Amino acid sequence: MVMRSVDLRSDTVTRPTDAMREAMCNAEVDDDVLGYDPTARRLEEEMAKMMGKEAALFVPSGTMGNLISVMVHCDVRGSEVILGDNCHIHVYENGGISTIGGVHPKTVKNEEDGTMDLEAIEAAIRDPKGSTFYPSTRLICLENTHANSGGRCLSVEYTEKVGEIAKRHGVKLHIDGARLFNASIALGVPVHKLVKAADSVQVCLSKGLGAPVGSVIVGSQSFIEKAKTVRKTLGGGMRQIGVLCAAALVALQENLPKLQHDHKKAKLLAAVETNMIFMDMEDGSRLTAEKLRKNLEENGILLIRGNSSRIRIVIHHQITTSDVHYTLSCFQQAMLTMQEPSRT
Amino acid sequence: MVMRSVDLRSDTVTRPTDAMREAMCNAEVDDDVLGYDPTARRLEEEMAKMMGKEAALFVPSGTMGNLISVMVHCDVRGSEVILGDNCHIHVYENGGISTIGGVHPKTVKNEEDGTMDLEAIEAAIRDPKGSTFYPSTRLICLENTHANSGGRCLSVEYTEKVGEIAKRHGVKLHIDGARLFNASIALGVPVHKLVKAADSVQVCLSKGLGAPVGSVIVGSQSFIEKAKTVRKTLGGGMRQIGVLCAAALVALQENLPKLQHDHKKAKLLAAVETNMIFMDMEDGSRLTAEKLRKNLEENGILLIRGNSSRIRIVIHHQITTSDVHYTLSCFQQAMLTMQEPSRT
Amino acid sequence: MVMRSVDLRSDTVTRPTDAMREAMCNAEVDDDVLGYDPTARRLEEEMAKMMGKEAALFVPSGTMGNLISVMVHCDVRGSEVILGDNCHIHVYENGGISTIGGVHPKTVKNEEDGTMDLEAIEAAIRDPKGSTFYPSTRLICLENTHANSGGRCLSVEYTEKVGEIAKRHGVKLHIDGARLFNASIALGVPVHKLVKAADSVQVCLSKGLGAPVGSVIVGSQSFIEKAKTVRKTLGGGMRQIGVLCAAALVALQENLPKLQHDHKKAKLLAAVETNMIFMDMEDGSRLTAEKLRKNLEENGILLIRGNSSRIRIVIHHQITTSDVHYTLSCFQQAMLTMQEPSRT
Amino acid sequence: MVMRSVDLRSDTVTRPTDAMREAMCNAEVDDDVLGYDPTARRLEEEMAKMMGKEAALFVPSGTMGNLISVMVHCDVRGSEVILGDNCHIHVYENGGISTIGGVHPKTVKNEEDGTMDLEAIEAAIRDPKGSTFYPSTRLICLENTHANSGGRCLSVEYTEKVGEIAKRHGVKLHIDGARLFNASIALGVPVHKLVKAADSVQVCLSKGLGAPVGSVIVGSQSFIEKAKTVRKTLGGGMRQIGVLCAAALVALQENLPKLQHDHKKAKLLAAVETNMIFMDMEDGSRLTAEKLRKNLEENGILLIRGNSSRIRIVIHHQITTSDVHYTLSCFQQAMLTMQEPSRT
Repeated sequence: MVMRSVDLRSDTVTRPTDAMREAMCNAEVDDDVLGYDPTARRLEEEMAKMMGKEAALFVPSGTMGNLISVMVHCDVRGSEVILGDNCHIHVYENGGISTIGGVHPKTVKNEEDGTMDLEAIEAAIRDPKGSTFYPSTRLICLENTHANSGGRCLSVEYTEKVGEIAKRHGVKLHIDGARLFNASIALGVPVHKLVKAADSVQVCLSKGLGAPVGSVIVGSQSFIEKAKTVRKTLGGGMRQIGVLCAAALVALQENLPKLQHDHKKAKLLAAVETNMIFMDMEDGSRLTAEKLRKNLEENGILLIRGNSSRIRIVIHHQITTSDVHYTLSCFQQAMLTMQEPSRT
Repeated sequence: MVMRSVDLRSDTVTRPTDAMREAMCNAEVDDDVLGYDPTARRLEEEMAKMMGKEAALFVPSGTMGNLISVMVHCDVRGSEVILGDNCHIHVYENGGISTIGGVHPKTVKNEEDGTMDLEAIEAAIRDPKGSTFYPSTRLICLENTHANSGGRCLSVEYTEKVGEIAKRHGVKLHIDGARLFNASIALGVPVHKLVKAADSVQVCLSKGLGAPVGSVIVGSQSFIEKAKTVRKTLGGGMRQIGVLCAAALVALQENLPKLQHDHKKAKLLAAVETNMIFMDMEDGSRLTAEKLRKNLEENGILLIRGNSSRIRIVIHHQITTSDVHYTLSCFQQAMLTMQEPSRT
Repeated sequence: MVMRSVDLRSDTVTRPTDAMREAMCNAEVDDDVLGYDPTARRLEEEMAKMMGKEAALFVPSGTMGNLISVMVHCDVRGSEVILGDNCHIHVYENGGISTIGGVHPKTVKNEEDGTMDLEAIEAAIRDPKGSTFYPSTRLICLENTHANSGGRCLSVEYTEKVGEIAKRHGVKLHIDGARLFNASIALGVPVHKLVKAADSVQVCLSKGLGAPVGSVIVGSQSFIEKAKTVRKTLGGGMRQIGVLCAAALVALQENLPKLQHDHKKAKLLAAVETNMIFMDMEDGSRLTAEKLRKNLEENGILLIRGNSSRIRIVIHHQITTSDVHYTLSCFQQAMLTMQEPSRT
Repeated sequence: MVMRSVDLRSDTVTRPTDAMREAMCNAEVDDDVLGYDPTARRLEEEMAKMMGKEAALFVPSGTMGNLISVMVHCDVRGSEVILGDNCHIHVYENGGISTIGGVHPKTVKNEEDGTMDLEAIEAAIRDPKGSTFYPSTRLICLENTHANSGGRCLSVEYTEKVGEIAKRHGVKLHIDGARLFNASIALGVPVHKLVKAADSVQVCLSKGLGAPVGSVIVGSQSFIEKAKTVRKTLGGGMRQIGVLCAAALVALQENLPKLQHDHKKAKLLAAVETNMIFMDMEDGSRLTAEKLRKNLEENGILLIRGNSSRIRIVIHHQITTSDVHYTLSCFQQAMLTMQEPSRT
């Protein structure tokens, strides 16, 4: 008997669907480094249009999309970026913006909902015209949805207010929109409204949308021109990427409408906004995150620990309602068994 | 009537074959960032074995493969790399090793055959234990075949001698083997012998081998472990890369044996070692590279200019013998027409 | 009539005393870049001994001393340093550790007394052996006294506890001791005890000690060897520095005993631990920091604003008790005048 | 008996004269980091005027002066500088422009006279508007006098021609004028004419001029503003630097007229243009540079080896004609003794 497998590690674990595979198989391609791959162009044009920006660029990963964006906005040595102390760029991307880009990160506390206090953002800005003692703030970064807050959505209103602060001080606004489509669906707002205030946005194709590889960054024509050079410098210029972009084009059609179902399924597990659920163990509980993870793994349920007392669950289009019910019952069983005092 | 098209711009312009497309379609995949994509693992294992090294890593591009390799060997600030003044890393990769990696390039003159004088290499080394005035040499880079010399091959003997110098001084040796398989075929030497002296090698899958996307770097287990971290930092960690690696596995089987034919076809055009031909216009000639390029383009023959008086031709598996003959006759026609004094 | 002048902008504004000037005049010197200036050596030996470390190095400034120290401990690309969000290195040094050094700063909240919560420090450490997602924590920085907290002292006990955390995790501890001697005097603890747990310390000669130029860093022999190279790279290697070191040697003798008087004078103005006083205006007060600063300037009292509602006063050996009384009375006058509603 | 000592290691080894020491003793100073030291201002104004530029800045060393200049002109990531393969910046300054500044060095061969071929310079320039494959050339560096060529002078004509190339391509020109005054004296041309074509110049105060510490960079007001920030970032902002600048002001008055004597004395040793003499041992000679150096050291003559077969001699104002004659006779003695076959 084959054990049931429910892969809740991330929404990046999805396998390409048959339609995506067929699209890859038939993709019209060219050398994207020399000229321009026609399928990449189609994807980039479609993404730019959806996001309401002039241009777009396919990149190998969200990490590279964020890194390129920060490096383009902060192309002058001595730049500083303001970002949340719990955001993905600061916590999970190897510190690349400083170790590779030489950009100084100035963190502002992330509130529980993934926002940063507006006054704190404004207070953190240091005159982008420079001073002798300070780096020059040239960029503010938001993350929508905010992963480490459990997939919380930033509203249009909040984003616009941050955009106004940025404009007032002559600094740029970048949105790490790895899961921007989830925010759009959850808030019932088209993505272009969510990012209107932003000078650049990074969106992942390989998370909720389920494409096999890649992200897209969008912005002005001039931003994208500079981004192409940085992409090449980092080694992100690739050849016949039409095969990947063809799958992404299918993903946009196929899976974008399914994100709402992901959110509904997630709500079966907990009162969350989008597709991520964090379960925190009580202090002093017998139940550690690692024990729980292992117990569930024995039942075919794959999870990632957030930390020693946190389990992270991410719903995606290849998780069925039945998978969620199965997960729920395994959870309940695990809690019962593991929280009992051991009999001796 | 559709004009005949002969794409001689580069060996990177090949379209994936039907077998590659089918392999992509059926590829077994997983999230390569979280765990390990099984098809990526197969490709990496096969490449490591062929190259006679402990381990391998799939990367998005040759540029990233070289950048990662230099950054791993030169992970300590204040490092210097010795490399040819006309090599790809120094000339065409955006200066990434210094602008991104902070590594100091010390160039040695590339001879016409792509080698650097052995004494000049040794003289260029500065004590890797450091000094107060000099950066510390930590790496020597070779390129095989050497593109800017017209695809010339470095012999096993030469490579071994450079390797001995490197060892004697406690520095590492990296080979940019973007077209290493071409060298192997032309010299009649298995690749693992060509790179035995090297601590790391980068090989392109998307050049002569004709895979749609990607390169592989090989080296010791410990080198590859560090390389994985740098790849992630640069944004080269990707998700279901099995779709790309599946095509690359086919490319290895399908196209490796065809490289010898590429070389034979190239020899129909000029006395060259591998698959690249540089045509230099005579000084003072009426014929400029740009004029010739345009004339040929009108006949469906696509080329890239090397500089104002140089045409570059690269043969690949999708160029037929008939394409070469057609190209030859168009060339002859162009020369006749264009070198005639204009009649007035 | 010449107006009285009281320069409370910083303890860096002191003029060299006659004894210092005479020492500069008579200093025995040599080229410190080539060989070793004998007076520099004397100063470095004396400082190393006082601080209980193996070796010392004269550097042009505290900023360079901190930058060198961070760069030596974090010499491998991809390093992270844990430091207070309100510390001098993070706030006032142009972000040099990231923009020049490529080191990722991970801030922990500075408490009012200049400490960081011990658990927060420990939680912030990321395995210095590295991971694919995180930079590697290689250093913790403390600042003693902590300027932005108003010159608060870190105790031996606290420092030792941070040192234990550092050791337990295999990371280094650097102390920005720009005003370490003030802490030593205020706490009644010899400096070597205050820095016993540290792998490196930066001490300013041109603050409370009153030397015209320079700082010293101390640490192990191997740390100082590496520091010399980084100093040269940054351009901090200087020639006949004996002239500066001679003045510093006098400063140590002359002014070290006077620091206690600075603290006493500071206490005439407010209940502070060392020589710095921050005066915060009440919210909504008519009195802004800038207005107060200007008013006092008209009376010859020079100050620096901390921010829009904060005045910063720093006492040094060239401020007399009479200066302090004069300052107090000008303050009281200013408050009376300026807080009155304007009569119309 | 005290042995005679003749220190020919460098022109950086001079001790401050009595007049300089007195000037240091009486220097009017202030905190140059906070405000502006009046003596520093005097020196900076005088230097700017002499060099025919808008503004000047005192820096701790020539290395920092060059590093700051390159970093200001190449403030945008992805910049490239063209410079001689044998110039001081490339060979002796720890590779700081790339390892600290992330600037890509593109070397052009230095001819025997310290120039670079004009066509080679122009051919090396890569469109400063950028491309996807190349870094952007933003700066050309010359060195006058050129140390590694034996103190050879670059003429006004040559410098102007390089300046024209720079202008034509929209790139800047920096002159490493560590020994610019020697060139000026030797060529009989005022310094401002020698640097008219340059956007920035670095001049050492502590070489032929004999000041104890420091260099000055000159350029436009806007260049110097940016330079101040970079100086602070690197840790080159210092406090009461008036003590150093006072000595430098004396050096300008006292020693500038003496440079011609240095050159005359140097000519007693060999046919050179300025104050540097390189003595190359013949191939296969019994006489190695190290043996000769040691032999002379036993006679109190201090020298530095250039390499295994080269001795470097530098004349400065504290070398008398009698010292030169003594050196000559010791040389002759050494050659006689050491070149004789050993008798057995």
